[in-house]
Amino acid sequence: MKVAVKDVRKLAEGILLANGVPGSHAATQAGLFIEAEMRAIPSHGLLRLRRVIERIHAGLSNPTTTGNQQWTARAFLSVDGERGLGPVIAMAALDTIIPRAKEDGIAIAAIRNTNHLGALAYYAEHVANQGLTCIALTISEALVHPWGGRKAMIGTNPIAIGVPADPTPMVLDMATGLVSMGKIHDHANRGAPIPLGWALDENGDPTTDASAAKKGAIAPFGGPKGYALGIAFEVLVASLAASAIGTGVKGTLDSVNVSNKGDIFIVIAPPHAEGAKALVTAYLEDIRGAAPSDPAHPVLAPGDRAHAARAQSEKRGMFIDDGLWGDLQKLSEESKKEIS
Amino acid sequence: MKVAVKDVRKLAEGILLANGVPGSHAATQAGLFIEAEMRAIPSHGLLRLRRVIERIHAGLSNPTTTGNQQWTARAFLSVDGERGLGPVIAMAALDTIIPRAKEDGIAIAAIRNTNHLGALAYYAEHVANQGLTCIALTISEALVHPWGGRKAMIGTNPIAIGVPADPTPMVLDMATGLVSMGKIHDHANRGAPIPLGWALDENGDPTTDASAAKKGAIAPFGGPKGYALGIAFEVLVASLAASAIGTGVKGTLDSVNVSNKGDIFIVIAPPHAEGAKALVTAYLEDIRGAAPSDPAHPVLAPGDRAHAARAQSEKRGMFIDDGLWGDLQKLSEESKKEIS
Repeated sequence: MKVAVKDVRKLAEGILLANGVPGSHAATQAGLFIEAEMRAIPSHGLLRLRRVIERIHAGLSNPTTTGNQQWTARAFLSVDGERGLGPVIAMAALDTIIPRAKEDGIAIAAIRNTNHLGALAYYAEHVANQGLTCIALTISEALVHPWGGRKAMIGTNPIAIGVPADPTPMVLDMATGLVSMGKIHDHANRGAPIPLGWALDENGDPTTDASAAKKGAIAPFGGPKGYALGIAFEVLVASLAASAIGTGVKGTLDSVNVSNKGDIFIVIAPPHAEGAKALVTAYLEDIRGAAPSDPAHPVLAPGDRAHAARAQSEKRGMFIDDGLWGDLQKLSEESKKEIS
Repeated sequence: MKVAVKDVRKLAEGILLANGVPGSHAATQAGLFIEAEMRAIPSHGLLRLRRVIERIHAGLSNPTTTGNQQWTARAFLSVDGERGLGPVIAMAALDTIIPRAKEDGIAIAAIRNTNHLGALAYYAEHVANQGLTCIALTISEALVHPWGGRKAMIGTNPIAIGVPADPTPMVLDMATGLVSMGKIHDHANRGAPIPLGWALDENGDPTTDASAAKKGAIAPFGGPKGYALGIAFEVLVASLAASAIGTGVKGTLDSVNVSNKGDIFIVIAPPHAEGAKALVTAYLEDIRGAAPSDPAHPVLAPGDRAHAARAQSEKRGMFIDDGLWGDLQKLSEESKKEIS
């Protein structure tokens, strides 16, 4: 169904407020989910709100903290997230390192002990909108198998890169798994098979059975190169954030475990900001204007699809899955009851 | 043929010295090529030495400079490479930013106007051997087509990541093209076809003809994700280094054009170096010990194959292609003649 963005925002923030989340934190957490919905990435949208509430009730998430920030060196911010809401801890860390990056040219935040960040594109774009370049990395539960291996040992380890450009920054956001576990679950729910090569079953054998794949492991994207990239991100993040690693990572997907993964944000100030932006803008225009192999499908730059969807949502309201909208109403009612 | 490492080094350095390269610069440039040979990556080895000499003679490479380094901000080193030898300019930049990274936690060097760097793994490992984490990026002539496009518009844009570990650092080094142009040339020289999907011909149509692919474009690795990553690296590097971008990049492969690509090095000091190294070491051991899908092929961590080849080369001498060895002797004779 189609709904006005402001109505969705009011509903989502209301649910968070009713569950003890302070106003500005509720705006941050809800805002992240709503951006994902507006960009037609519902997998990272409001369907995750119920889990956020469950984790608060289970004591796995502290909705009031902004994290304990320590400058372990002049341009290295180490953050103990104190089990805070992922977007709240991350945005607070960015607020702290952005001025340092503007002054020194580069700064890094390494975060541990915080909840799921949601879509990394949100942060990369937030930084790039301020004329700065951003590299964002996070790790997850081990869901991906090594190239030539049989068991899940690596997170889905996404990377986001934001670079200033007009009219919108270039924003890359991609996981290093071939598909998401959400997509596997979706196939399993529909009883649909998955293509061979997407995943292994729990014995480490290739499978087309989505239900078997749920207990198994996802393939890395791009063969041995994507595998190597996923491993490199895993060790880079965990070693700098002093977080858990590999199969030791827990608590980003469930309502049982403390979230012990790590997150990294690198913010860089280009020395010649205007020239840099013009260079990137012109190049991306060339890319978009390139002759396509299929005339029906113009060549896109990273983030174009999300930006187009967002513009549509702003103009015409956003589409939300009927079932999800019903569940949000229910969650809102439950939250009110608990208070009264 | 098998040769002693020291004999190869003497020959390669001698050729460089005879062509006006100062001793320490010759050691750096030759050392980079020899490391590639020792690691069984001949595509980045001594076969490139002749081109280095040609570029010096053509005035496209200034073998004496170490570049003009400017701290445009406290932790941002902007380098005009002044047409210097790639490894000389890059190692000088690393020498400058490593102490700053140790002090501030992170520092970056953005380099323009320098010649081909060679294998990025060399720099990532050099940094990681000092207990620091390194992200290295460079761009190249446009050889890769956009996903859904017909023409080459993106460099092969490799990334290297080095993270301290025992007994050797984890070193990832991979291009974002599906295959190298060198591999396409190799197929063309042998009259061998290439698999469909590797490349397009000069009209932008898929081809299995390696000779046609030489005039066309290589596919990005990993489909749309690898494409997006290649674009993101292109704009990140060019915007920070103020270098050329896309089809404007020239002079890393020929003896005609000034090299106008950019290079980026980010060096990061982990706050808890010993703990970080132990965490990564243990994780990589787990990965290597994982049950393989094929018992004949143990699971490898990034860089393992190169490190194993290097250990063999140190112990037993290195293998050099007979034709290449002959060409190096010839190049050595030519260089002596020019002097006398």
